[in-house]
Amino acid sequence: MSELLVSGGQVLLPDHTVTEADVLVDQESGNIVAVDDPGTLDGDDELDAADGLVIPGLVNAHTHVSMTLLRGYADDKPLDAWLQEDIWPVEGELTAEDVRVGAELGLTEMIKSGTTALADMYFFMEQVAEAVDDAGMRGLLGQGCISVGKDEEDAHEDFQSGLAFANEYDGYADGRVRTAFMPHSLTTAGEEYYREYVPEAREAGVPIHFHANETEGEVDPIVEEHGERPLEYADDIGLLEPEDFLAHGVHVDETEIDLLAERGTGVVHNPASNMKLASGMAPVQAMVDAGVSVALGTDGAASNNDLDLFDEMRDAAMLGKLAADDASAMAAGTVLEIATRGGAEVLGFDGGRIGAGANADLAVVDLDATHLTPHHDLVSHLVYAAKGSDVRHTVCDGEVLMRDREVQVFDESSVRERAETAARDLVARAERE
Amino acid sequence: MSELLVSGGQVLLPDHTVTEADVLVDQESGNIVAVDDPGTLDGDDELDAADGLVIPGLVNAHTHVSMTLLRGYADDKPLDAWLQEDIWPVEGELTAEDVRVGAELGLTEMIKSGTTALADMYFFMEQVAEAVDDAGMRGLLGQGCISVGKDEEDAHEDFQSGLAFANEYDGYADGRVRTAFMPHSLTTAGEEYYREYVPEAREAGVPIHFHANETEGEVDPIVEEHGERPLEYADDIGLLEPEDFLAHGVHVDETEIDLLAERGTGVVHNPASNMKLASGMAPVQAMVDAGVSVALGTDGAASNNDLDLFDEMRDAAMLGKLAADDASAMAAGTVLEIATRGGAEVLGFDGGRIGAGANADLAVVDLDATHLTPHHDLVSHLVYAAKGSDVRHTVCDGEVLMRDREVQVFDESSVRERAETAARDLVARAERE
Repeated sequence: MSELLVSGGQVLLPDHTVTEADVLVDQESGNIVAVDDPGTLDGDDELDAADGLVIPGLVNAHTHVSMTLLRGYADDKPLDAWLQEDIWPVEGELTAEDVRVGAELGLTEMIKSGTTALADMYFFMEQVAEAVDDAGMRGLLGQGCISVGKDEEDAHEDFQSGLAFANEYDGYADGRVRTAFMPHSLTTAGEEYYREYVPEAREAGVPIHFHANETEGEVDPIVEEHGERPLEYADDIGLLEPEDFLAHGVHVDETEIDLLAERGTGVVHNPASNMKLASGMAPVQAMVDAGVSVALGTDGAASNNDLDLFDEMRDAAMLGKLAADDASAMAAGTVLEIATRGGAEVLGFDGGRIGAGANADLAVVDLDATHLTPHHDLVSHLVYAAKGSDVRHTVCDGEVLMRDREVQVFDESSVRERAETAARDLVARAERE
Repeated sequence: MSELLVSGGQVLLPDHTVTEADVLVDQESGNIVAVDDPGTLDGDDELDAADGLVIPGLVNAHTHVSMTLLRGYADDKPLDAWLQEDIWPVEGELTAEDVRVGAELGLTEMIKSGTTALADMYFFMEQVAEAVDDAGMRGLLGQGCISVGKDEEDAHEDFQSGLAFANEYDGYADGRVRTAFMPHSLTTAGEEYYREYVPEAREAGVPIHFHANETEGEVDPIVEEHGERPLEYADDIGLLEPEDFLAHGVHVDETEIDLLAERGTGVVHNPASNMKLASGMAPVQAMVDAGVSVALGTDGAASNNDLDLFDEMRDAAMLGKLAADDASAMAAGTVLEIATRGGAEVLGFDGGRIGAGANADLAVVDLDATHLTPHHDLVSHLVYAAKGSDVRHTVCDGEVLMRDREVQVFDESSVRERAETAARDLVARAERE
């Protein structure tokens, strides 16, 4: 089978107008071949988009997918206590098998809610890479490298293995997996490690992804130690290249926003996590206005607690207005843009739009729903009213990952069962410690 | 058929523990008769709750249900411009038939997402009352009365018809409909109207519901004119009785919070609307801590844009943390409480809990879902991870309103079709003006 026709629906075009059209996909190249009037194109296989809206696959540009195993394990605590008392002790017990089944659980959840690409930072990343391969999705993957709290030897080993993963897995899964070097954050990785390993990452040609300016408590020590704002420090240690991207950027000032715009470095906005951990409100409309490349992410399921980008789009629109003290900020079209084209650009994939030549990464949203009636404005509906459960089909790289709400790439109930068991065992091990 | 058994599932008890149990409902009285070990109870009809969690029906304590017709019609604008440029011109064209089909659309949406009771303020309220009767839900209904921008005669007619509705429909639909007198807000209804009609409402024995302290722009003129905070003014004009409740309460200071706690007046928190209109962050945890009766509402679909209380619970938890600058604020249990027992108390219904003697208003949430795996903490899942679409059955007053995701009380596709047509015609009329 080589050509897939997504037919009978409406299509969201790159300018956010909506038209009745069919979409033809070449499965070999994984690209969209044509978008044309209904009934004018033919394919070998057909995906029925009647009563549906064809949209670009959503891009989850910052997550820790295997943390689905910790969904609901510890809530309602500030970032530091939550990490130190709950998350890190359990993560210390994680096995490669746990990371694999957690990834399968999270990727299944993403496919069901119309997400086709992710950036993921965690441990045992070869397991995540294999799960992404099985899932048929696109991933920009990297191992989170930390030096704080480790002796020198362990820390070096961590950074070296992070680089080795980036080198080994770049281009894996027929090119659907790309990699990045991922020092965890500006405060959890020491300057000497940046000085040593950033040049190696440049040599390897992989981008760098890191957490930055997430909480106020993270900004102050950097200002004290280095006498400059965190992103000025990041610039000094070579982290702000155009292919690089950071997660959060909640507490950034105007100088830092300008610096990001100038350098072309991407920012992944994580509104749900920023609210749930009371981290603060990112000035996301100000970043968009300054020309910063902004993408959207769910962060891990433990601080969200789902991986549904429809929820996240709603959160981005809502929180963006509060942050700007302006109800016209982060309008629906802007939010949809960061969740699609913005994410694809930040991650370096040629997707995020329905048009000939783009990656055939798309989702079909069922519009025939009470909570999506009436149809005054479908862009508004995608951001404010639609849910992940409205997604009917998901396609990535030309392959059908979900058809009529049936996930094709994993046995969903088996994934759930294995994840439930792994999660219980994991917590039991951690609580025995 | 007189006894309904909700069997095979887990049950959320009033103390938020979860246990495997069956729930027996007497359909004649509309009450829960017993909650007991699986297999120990018998009913004439059965509702299969296997792999599900039985929870109290959610209470939407402030909405304008017929505004579903305007879902997505105008977004991303500040409250004043949004009302004056978009919402009021269209509302000026609303017919009784529009309000009826909008209500049917919104009630269907609520039933599908596990809501069994609502407080509604709008026009043509006899249409809403009849729709609530047909829906089998509970409603506390009232006509929004406004004097600002009207000549004296029209204004008096509005308040008189508001009172007449409250008198006529209290106890309607076998007691499932109660009424309230609903002057629109402290700024859109003049003091002389409060002075004249509040005593009449007291005589009629109906509570009073009004908007208050929603935006900063609404607080300042009251402080200027009356030399006191809005809720002190509300107290002066007789609005803070224990049966009364106000919507929003975003910009309330400590004095006002104490006053609310002292008077026993309820506050309906509307986090999504407050974010979408950039109104601000209500100090909701502070209100809960002070002993204020707090409930949860979606507001109208035009400022949300859905009527799904699962979304709203998530928003309440998230925004409550930001407002308090404390990730432990508005913990999942607190949020679930305001969405169930809190709402029932504020509206004066004997529901919001699964226990013998309570109203048989409940929903069954399907737990067998990827985005709800693993099951570390089901209360957390209800607030942070579940969606309205996870609701499998909805029961109100002992009657099954939705069974296996099939709405029993309305023909859902007919409602959608009629609403779509009415919404298009309505907007066309408004845009011709």
